[in-house]
Amino acid sequence: MDTYRLYFSPGACSLAAHIVLEETGAPFELLAVPVAEGANLQPDYLAVNPKGRVPALAIPGESRVLTELPAIVTFIARRHYQTLAMLPKAPLGEARCHEWFAWLAGWVHGVGFGGLWRPARFVAEVSLHAAVSAHARQTIETAFAQIESKLPDGRSYALPCGYTIVDPFLLVLYRWGMRIGLPMGDTYPAWTASARRVLERPAVQRALHSEGISLEF
Amino acid sequence: MDTYRLYFSPGACSLAAHIVLEETGAPFELLAVPVAEGANLQPDYLAVNPKGRVPALAIPGESRVLTELPAIVTFIARRHYQTLAMLPKAPLGEARCHEWFAWLAGWVHGVGFGGLWRPARFVAEVSLHAAVSAHARQTIETAFAQIESKLPDGRSYALPCGYTIVDPFLLVLYRWGMRIGLPMGDTYPAWTASARRVLERPAVQRALHSEGISLEF
Repeated sequence: MDTYRLYFSPGACSLAAHIVLEETGAPFELLAVPVAEGANLQPDYLAVNPKGRVPALAIPGESRVLTELPAIVTFIARRHYQTLAMLPKAPLGEARCHEWFAWLAGWVHGVGFGGLWRPARFVAEVSLHAAVSAHARQTIETAFAQIESKLPDGRSYALPCGYTIVDPFLLVLYRWGMRIGLPMGDTYPAWTASARRVLERPAVQRALHSEGISLEF
Repeated sequence: MDTYRLYFSPGACSLAAHIVLEETGAPFELLAVPVAEGANLQPDYLAVNPKGRVPALAIPGESRVLTELPAIVTFIARRHYQTLAMLPKAPLGEARCHEWFAWLAGWVHGVGFGGLWRPARFVAEVSLHAAVSAHARQTIETAFAQIESKLPDGRSYALPCGYTIVDPFLLVLYRWGMRIGLPMGDTYPAWTASARRVLERPAVQRALHSEGISLEF
């Protein structure tokens, strides 16, 4: 079987793609591109992915890497459907996955955490970065309350139908919430219960272990 | 057959969903939610879509509307595949659609045009809005140059394989470029040729006509 290569940075949103690869049993190699050290902006990585972002997935026989987390997880889940169904077969169930993902990737990650951690994406003047970051933190807290409000019915996962490509990404965002000091367990009990369930999965444990990171409640 | 209801605002990104509905021949009704008049933030619309954004798609038999443009166009294209294939069957071709869409929706629309037109999403202080908008305009111009650089090989559409869900959204962004005064024809000749081709499609003409808008080169 072909071997993928996943370009990742420890704990970045690429962790969600890493988990989906582990879940579906697709063979892959990991290539570390530590964003904290600026490796994503070095010429050797820009030659692979001119966007300078992670994740990127190198696919055997394909000259260009596949970029953008929603595209990568959808591709892996669809191609390796036989191993573990992480994308619902019904068009509407699949659409609910894409609905979650577009909002989590574009708004919660892109505007929320992007604004908090990378204010230079939104305004050039360094003196204004603190104001952008402060506003982004509010965006994150509002969005996190919305996530919690979607999970109050005792379900274990983002979609009532079961474990999907959305859940690994929600786990990444949960971990980021802890990193920025939000009282996740107290404030978001339903989301915490879901995150615990996801964290128990062997594939998730393997992915965290190989990235050298942890998540402790 | 079931009739969808599409909540749209004239010329907004909902136009891309409108075009895909027209293309696939799915029966639908249009419900105008003019964002320019703040209709998206009125209680009656927030009861339908608490996010206060367009598009939203009401699906017969489904209590909650489907939100987020990438989810809506994927859903329509998949469910009405028999009429017109706007989503490639091969997992990698489909993934390239999602790759385009995630970047166009999350970055070019969300961060670029979002920052330009809705700086309050990124920073609270009104006095800082001009700086955010100015930076966003640069983001848009850089992104537009990247779009142009992807289309130089004489292809008519975003993907070499043909017309897909990506193209109506590219047409919306092209029109927005004209609206903000960018010299689209001179600066982006390959994209302009592609936009002309898309604009010739009867379904696109019908959608523009029913929204009461135009696009003239």
